[in-house]
Amino acid sequence: MSLAVGVIGAGVMGAEHARILRENVSGAHLAAICDADPARAAAAGPGARFFADPHALIASDAVAAVVIASPDATHAEFTLAAIRLGKPVLCEKPIAAEAAAGLGVVEAEAALGRRLVQLGFMRRFDAAYGEMRRARQDGSIGAIRLLHNIHRNRAAPGWFTGAMALTNSFVHEIDISRWLLGSEMVAAQIFPAAGGGPLMIVMRTEKGEIVSTEVNVNAGYGYHVHAELVGSQGTIEMAAPARTLCNLAGARSFAFPPDWIPRFAQAYRTQTQAWVDAIAAGTSAGASAWDGYVTTVIAERLVAALDAGQTVEIALPPRPALYAEAA
Amino acid sequence: MSLAVGVIGAGVMGAEHARILRENVSGAHLAAICDADPARAAAAGPGARFFADPHALIASDAVAAVVIASPDATHAEFTLAAIRLGKPVLCEKPIAAEAAAGLGVVEAEAALGRRLVQLGFMRRFDAAYGEMRRARQDGSIGAIRLLHNIHRNRAAPGWFTGAMALTNSFVHEIDISRWLLGSEMVAAQIFPAAGGGPLMIVMRTEKGEIVSTEVNVNAGYGYHVHAELVGSQGTIEMAAPARTLCNLAGARSFAFPPDWIPRFAQAYRTQTQAWVDAIAAGTSAGASAWDGYVTTVIAERLVAALDAGQTVEIALPPRPALYAEAA
Amino acid sequence: MSLAVGVIGAGVMGAEHARILRENVSGAHLAAICDADPARAAAAGPGARFFADPHALIASDAVAAVVIASPDATHAEFTLAAIRLGKPVLCEKPIAAEAAAGLGVVEAEAALGRRLVQLGFMRRFDAAYGEMRRARQDGSIGAIRLLHNIHRNRAAPGWFTGAMALTNSFVHEIDISRWLLGSEMVAAQIFPAAGGGPLMIVMRTEKGEIVSTEVNVNAGYGYHVHAELVGSQGTIEMAAPARTLCNLAGARSFAFPPDWIPRFAQAYRTQTQAWVDAIAAGTSAGASAWDGYVTTVIAERLVAALDAGQTVEIALPPRPALYAEAA
Amino acid sequence: MSLAVGVIGAGVMGAEHARILRENVSGAHLAAICDADPARAAAAGPGARFFADPHALIASDAVAAVVIASPDATHAEFTLAAIRLGKPVLCEKPIAAEAAAGLGVVEAEAALGRRLVQLGFMRRFDAAYGEMRRARQDGSIGAIRLLHNIHRNRAAPGWFTGAMALTNSFVHEIDISRWLLGSEMVAAQIFPAAGGGPLMIVMRTEKGEIVSTEVNVNAGYGYHVHAELVGSQGTIEMAAPARTLCNLAGARSFAFPPDWIPRFAQAYRTQTQAWVDAIAAGTSAGASAWDGYVTTVIAERLVAALDAGQTVEIALPPRPALYAEAA
Repeated sequence: MSLAVGVIGAGVMGAEHARILRENVSGAHLAAICDADPARAAAAGPGARFFADPHALIASDAVAAVVIASPDATHAEFTLAAIRLGKPVLCEKPIAAEAAAGLGVVEAEAALGRRLVQLGFMRRFDAAYGEMRRARQDGSIGAIRLLHNIHRNRAAPGWFTGAMALTNSFVHEIDISRWLLGSEMVAAQIFPAAGGGPLMIVMRTEKGEIVSTEVNVNAGYGYHVHAELVGSQGTIEMAAPARTLCNLAGARSFAFPPDWIPRFAQAYRTQTQAWVDAIAAGTSAGASAWDGYVTTVIAERLVAALDAGQTVEIALPPRPALYAEAA
Repeated sequence: MSLAVGVIGAGVMGAEHARILRENVSGAHLAAICDADPARAAAAGPGARFFADPHALIASDAVAAVVIASPDATHAEFTLAAIRLGKPVLCEKPIAAEAAAGLGVVEAEAALGRRLVQLGFMRRFDAAYGEMRRARQDGSIGAIRLLHNIHRNRAAPGWFTGAMALTNSFVHEIDISRWLLGSEMVAAQIFPAAGGGPLMIVMRTEKGEIVSTEVNVNAGYGYHVHAELVGSQGTIEMAAPARTLCNLAGARSFAFPPDWIPRFAQAYRTQTQAWVDAIAAGTSAGASAWDGYVTTVIAERLVAALDAGQTVEIALPPRPALYAEAA
Repeated sequence: MSLAVGVIGAGVMGAEHARILRENVSGAHLAAICDADPARAAAAGPGARFFADPHALIASDAVAAVVIASPDATHAEFTLAAIRLGKPVLCEKPIAAEAAAGLGVVEAEAALGRRLVQLGFMRRFDAAYGEMRRARQDGSIGAIRLLHNIHRNRAAPGWFTGAMALTNSFVHEIDISRWLLGSEMVAAQIFPAAGGGPLMIVMRTEKGEIVSTEVNVNAGYGYHVHAELVGSQGTIEMAAPARTLCNLAGARSFAFPPDWIPRFAQAYRTQTQAWVDAIAAGTSAGASAWDGYVTTVIAERLVAALDAGQTVEIALPPRPALYAEAA
Repeated sequence: MSLAVGVIGAGVMGAEHARILRENVSGAHLAAICDADPARAAAAGPGARFFADPHALIASDAVAAVVIASPDATHAEFTLAAIRLGKPVLCEKPIAAEAAAGLGVVEAEAALGRRLVQLGFMRRFDAAYGEMRRARQDGSIGAIRLLHNIHRNRAAPGWFTGAMALTNSFVHEIDISRWLLGSEMVAAQIFPAAGGGPLMIVMRTEKGEIVSTEVNVNAGYGYHVHAELVGSQGTIEMAAPARTLCNLAGARSFAFPPDWIPRFAQAYRTQTQAWVDAIAAGTSAGASAWDGYVTTVIAERLVAALDAGQTVEIALPPRPALYAEAA
């Protein structure tokens, strides 16, 4: 029994999801695709049924589960529609353009009483992050004290605003830090470097761990993500993201990928496979709607503080029982 | 349309093939499994149809393509049976226990006039080897002069004989060296280290490239494969096979895998997907029957020379037109 | 003409200075040594003249220049004594136990009008830091935005207090950050991790660069110093401090040194040679009295804020003309 | 008491020796220099006494020990002159242009009955090689089975002949392999790669260890030396020769040095200091005249076999008792 998946959005991420469903996943297939641009949809999903209307795709009997990769502002609406029909969703981050709308998704799912929504925080399926989390869980580096993150993009596109370094880039560190640590954030502070340059962000968790992050959307040299978890007995960090090294023209080197897709190509595939497998097993995987909501809350609070430079305290509503799970 | 695959053999490799077909491949599924031990077959292929007789599996209408992971001595026989029925085969190395039998497979396939056989030299699907081969093809390190290989196993099992370092381990370097270089080997010489220790093997290609290989089945510390391609302008080599590094107990370290399966886990998946995709497209992928035959010829010649210490000249019959392909 | 050097203090650092002067330096020799414990002095300086009284050593005609490696509280007093006699000094950090006393040294030297004092911030002579500073100076990574420091000790001795992580360890990052950046610090903030654990310290320079530092005196695994300078076009960071790698017992690893002396052994030698060469040439090298004073000011301000958790503003008196130099 | 050293030859290596003696060595100074070109001598040894005649320098009362860095063909003659006068010598490799002349030096020194000659095989003082040798001596990687060497130069100068890859480059691997292993070589075989390219050389020691070496004088990309010692339980190899890494222009990289002098700068200094210290202590250090002779014998035998491609057996005269030493 192969799961019939419909993909909403045929942009960069939607096309990548469609490709993964067509080429790399066991137990599922691309059944339908929707985009405002029919040609783009056809290119991304040859042979899949085309829908001009996302709601029609969600409601179609030909679609058993939905991937949402449309513009951010539509995420909550389409996710809610799928929840109403009881169809599983893999939704690209963010869960909603604003935290309040994200809370609406959480409440709808909590009211339903079973998890249908997986947020596309693909880093949770990256092998390096996985090894780091297991080191925390098995205690091999002692009690966790610090987490250092680095998030660098080669160059921000022209339409990138300052706040987007938080809402678009840093959200990945918010999610992965919570997941690596198994802790909730309680405070945060931003230190912007001069020259419109990178942000240094320091967060504190409920357990008193410190999370430092460089968010650098104009790093100049390539896409580069790094993390190091510091325990009371030792640390674990990502190895250099290289499969081969060249000795050439006076130097030894390896190339960074131009953007996040090659860096996390395997994580995207594993994420989709885990989503498909969880649906088949009647369980859930990956980041939940609650995780998506919390990330949006923190990012929103930081955006508000970006100019003020003050410490931000983070307050959350009670976590619904549906999302109570072991770290 | 999902390809129905039957797997012959439910040992370590057969079970891994069955798992990949059940969990990781798009466009195919595990339809049948055969093993002398029904319980082992059932464990490897839950839900798949069980065959006690490999020939019955090959002949079954429920099986459209066959993976052969049974003992080496049976490979040629089962492959020939599949060829007779026109069914595609993914056969674990070696193609046959002896080169003469391997030539029989080549001739049968050549007589048929289309490629049905893919040999399971999974390293061709490893990303690091792929980057090295592209460096040769695109000329980025100049004209190729040397290739250095290292092949280390933690410890050889008790039943491992000296010759098996050649027929079981070194065969991977024979195949991957031919593929990396796009050259045929013409001579080889073995230098055994004292203490029943590792072998140093030097081969020369038709183009005058030199291939040096350490084959070390009792390396002591773990499974470790390395290669460096040396060109006239630079070199390309494998990076350290680590996703994370630990700073702990006085040292920075990463762990080697205990054996080849974790090291080449992704290569195995990519190999099977490529096989399935090629069948769907009516093309072929990976190592051919001819590649499997040549590897067996070279290994056989080296075994004969293991004690003599002489230079071995390698002579091959003409390459059938079916296998004439671009490097 | 060999420079006759007297060393005050024969503890760990004094003995190391004495050894360097006896064994590794061109153009100087160990002429005299002083310590409260004559046996310890004799062990550190075989053949050197012994002084029980540091002031007698400083004043002796047999001593042309002085290395001060006695307890911190005596540094300013002995340095001032040497300045009065016009004798060059290499003084271990800190310049004084309190900033006010450090300012006294600065003023005495400034009144004299020529530099006699070099502070023992040996990291300025470390090759890796040197390469990083040159990358800033030659613009090869663009305009500098951030500096990340990590300073880890295996385990703090029992007598180590919380404030000493600042006054004893972090002072090295204060000095090297100023030197790497060619900037003065204007503000700082401390984030202590829970569990009496490491400190995360964020500083801001006059140019708006951000300096993040982990000071971790109980890192558990060894002595480890790391730094990365982030520019608008790229970054430069320290390579792993290893000369060899071992593949053993399932892992690839290299050992961290147990403390700072092996890590900076070459820097200590280069520092002393630079001091001797500068005296011969009538110039000066390394960190000045002013540098030593500024470092002490910043550390003192941070200690005062350690519990409060507030942002610390850093105010300095005008820099005397004697210390006006190119970055 | 500072040792008065005279340097013969003010070319690249002579000037470097003179500089080290002037700037980096404790207990010695550059007293005299000799070169056919007085201007070159003056530039290399400002303030040192100039000699036009090497024999006059050797005989001068102003010279207590001699560094020989003149053309290869003169090494034996000047070394013998120093031996006759009982003056210690640090002689650049080779000991003589031909093995027969090298044996003359060995016999003269053996007749004298004490070691006066140190050969300038500076790699023995390189920290990485030192760590590798200690790993062999302390048994930490088990019994030694193999040694892999790589010796790459960016580009051979125009006057470089094929045989010089052996007599000029490979001699360093001959010496360091003997020193690392504590074994004598008994056989060797050369595999030249096509295109006038690199040589692959396989040697066998008296204990049955195998030594593989790539000698590549036109590697294209820079100066690069690597070695890995393979034991029955693990291996030890050189780490990447980098102090810093740059992330720039799409890649992470570090630069190789253009030639051997920066790579072995510290080894040259340590070598000279060890020579000076050994003279003061009445002992000896580094490679002996016997080591220099053996290296020349092996290189000479290989040159004779370069075209023939045969296995070379290595026969040595009995080792004089003067050179009997622990491995």
